[in-house]
Amino acid sequence: MILLFTDFGLEGPYLGQVKAVLAAAAPAVPVIDLLSDAPPFDPGTAAYLLAALAEACPAGSVLLAVVDPGVGGPRAPIAVRAGGRWFVGPDNGLLAVAARRDPEAQAWEITWRPAALSASFHGRDLFAPVAARLAKGEPPPGGPRAVDLLVGAVWPPDLAQIVYCDRFGNLMTGLRATALGPDQGLRAGGHRLPRARTFSDLAPGEAFCYENANGLIEIAVNQGRADALLGLAVGDPVQIPPTT
Amino acid sequence: MILLFTDFGLEGPYLGQVKAVLAAAAPAVPVIDLLSDAPPFDPGTAAYLLAALAEACPAGSVLLAVVDPGVGGPRAPIAVRAGGRWFVGPDNGLLAVAARRDPEAQAWEITWRPAALSASFHGRDLFAPVAARLAKGEPPPGGPRAVDLLVGAVWPPDLAQIVYCDRFGNLMTGLRATALGPDQGLRAGGHRLPRARTFSDLAPGEAFCYENANGLIEIAVNQGRADALLGLAVGDPVQIPPTT
Amino acid sequence: MILLFTDFGLEGPYLGQVKAVLAAAAPAVPVIDLLSDAPPFDPGTAAYLLAALAEACPAGSVLLAVVDPGVGGPRAPIAVRAGGRWFVGPDNGLLAVAARRDPEAQAWEITWRPAALSASFHGRDLFAPVAARLAKGEPPPGGPRAVDLLVGAVWPPDLAQIVYCDRFGNLMTGLRATALGPDQGLRAGGHRLPRARTFSDLAPGEAFCYENANGLIEIAVNQGRADALLGLAVGDPVQIPPTT
Repeated sequence: MILLFTDFGLEGPYLGQVKAVLAAAAPAVPVIDLLSDAPPFDPGTAAYLLAALAEACPAGSVLLAVVDPGVGGPRAPIAVRAGGRWFVGPDNGLLAVAARRDPEAQAWEITWRPAALSASFHGRDLFAPVAARLAKGEPPPGGPRAVDLLVGAVWPPDLAQIVYCDRFGNLMTGLRATALGPDQGLRAGGHRLPRARTFSDLAPGEAFCYENANGLIEIAVNQGRADALLGLAVGDPVQIPPTT
Repeated sequence: MILLFTDFGLEGPYLGQVKAVLAAAAPAVPVIDLLSDAPPFDPGTAAYLLAALAEACPAGSVLLAVVDPGVGGPRAPIAVRAGGRWFVGPDNGLLAVAARRDPEAQAWEITWRPAALSASFHGRDLFAPVAARLAKGEPPPGGPRAVDLLVGAVWPPDLAQIVYCDRFGNLMTGLRATALGPDQGLRAGGHRLPRARTFSDLAPGEAFCYENANGLIEIAVNQGRADALLGLAVGDPVQIPPTT
Repeated sequence: MILLFTDFGLEGPYLGQVKAVLAAAAPAVPVIDLLSDAPPFDPGTAAYLLAALAEACPAGSVLLAVVDPGVGGPRAPIAVRAGGRWFVGPDNGLLAVAARRDPEAQAWEITWRPAALSASFHGRDLFAPVAARLAKGEPPPGGPRAVDLLVGAVWPPDLAQIVYCDRFGNLMTGLRATALGPDQGLRAGGHRLPRARTFSDLAPGEAFCYENANGLIEIAVNQGRADALLGLAVGDPVQIPPTT
């Protein structure tokens, strides 16, 4: 299957045009919108979300990832093989966090170009055809590239920052639960956020943090919006208090 | 086919992650977003919308329904067979209205559990795998449960309340057209809402009610937003005036 | 494949119900949301967007197009064959711009009616079953109709107006790049908008126009929202300055 991870938004023709290319090039392959509202223009934040969400995608999946403020500029298109999955997208850090979590990861620079390449929509014109090829079992159309030389290769393995706010005001961080002790909480915006198992473990209105269904530490309020009640947003830092 | 009825919203990774599970477990089965913005955390309202929308779904469909504020708590997962369709979701009333509209309906408590079950995302981890099994013709993985003992079994057959507001400000009620006389109107928020056949039967700006394309009584304003013009929202009661 | 072009919005049950009909009637055909937020109730604006987006759809595609304020009234349902693609929708101008761009285009009035036809949802009850038939290679269920007599047949070939604002505030016009000289700019709302190749050609904050990935002239601001910064919205006119 091919999973789309983009900052295109759900509105507009962009997702649909990518899917039309995929349906024509790889008709039997299911195509799924994994996330369409990734942090816009911010591959450095989106990379941690992509790496976490990829973990739950079946082996052999192709993740077509486009958060690409430099489209039309000199950044290279790349493919990465990591954790038994394929990733296709720009070399701007977006794929680097997932790549570095697999010591066996491999990367390719995509040198193939389509006959017609628009200046502003490489998701449709370049990345989608490459994703279709990979989903059909073809090799990446390009040459090898060292994972250590990808943009983002030196970024930290976890990000102590809020990376996504969901419809309900829950705030996902870029920290995996494995980055904390099993009962360790967080601090953010001056608030102490004790660790809990899930929402129903707390009284209504209480703020806490927990390991969400994708292995990330998430800040939430039982029966309330954490974003509004705590005054926090995507991009804000979080702190791991010292264990005592 | 499998149809998703949820309060997950369109944004975020939740719908996509459910679909990734379905595509892996039942690759040949079409998966359709039937409604992603069901009344959030409110199974008692969503149940009437689900029952109405299910009517237009083909025989043999599987409705994967998740409006589940008690996720992670003691509420049971259930499957229901009613009107020639399958329903899978939590036992919190969400499936009960559809179940009771078919005197031959059957219910099961799902006792199967996945190897890994997150505390907060049973839609992905538990309900989706069960929906995939049902779509492939397998029986519900659990034991029989009396329909009369489901949560919501004693709720009224129709709900005199607004259950959904669409993009255009039209207000769906939980009343089927069969609950009213053929020319009977409604009252809501102090407004008299005469019955009409459709929008073009009225002058611009006139408020009315009509049987919508799903058999529900809907409050609308020709060429206007009923929600704003009448000051009505989801959850507000409506009144059936006495016929004279 | 079948591509949906509608003003239904992404929320609500409408898109899902259309897809349930398509999945039942044409199970093997991919169905793609091409655009769900077309200018609402405004076929005269949406027509130019549809014609542009259709260009990137594969030969043999079926475009199911519903922007239909007159649903339930006397306007006829039609099918059009143009540019190697099928279009299905109401005869209110929505299909006319695409039709007129192909001198070989053909049109049909659809005379078939379903057993049950709601007054308000012909997208589901009438247009979707016809689209499924066309996707399976069947002929349009109706008789020929002169393209020159379609509503919209005398509309201009390009529209000097903003037809769509995307998530990022970029403003698509109804002008194809072929309607301007290769370096010609635009005027809109009193602003001079010089022509550029793409975003990265300009300094941050600069407004410009360029040929977007669908061949339309689009108004944008590098690293900014053109809609907010220029005070422009869908429906606003644009001016082509005289070339000197």
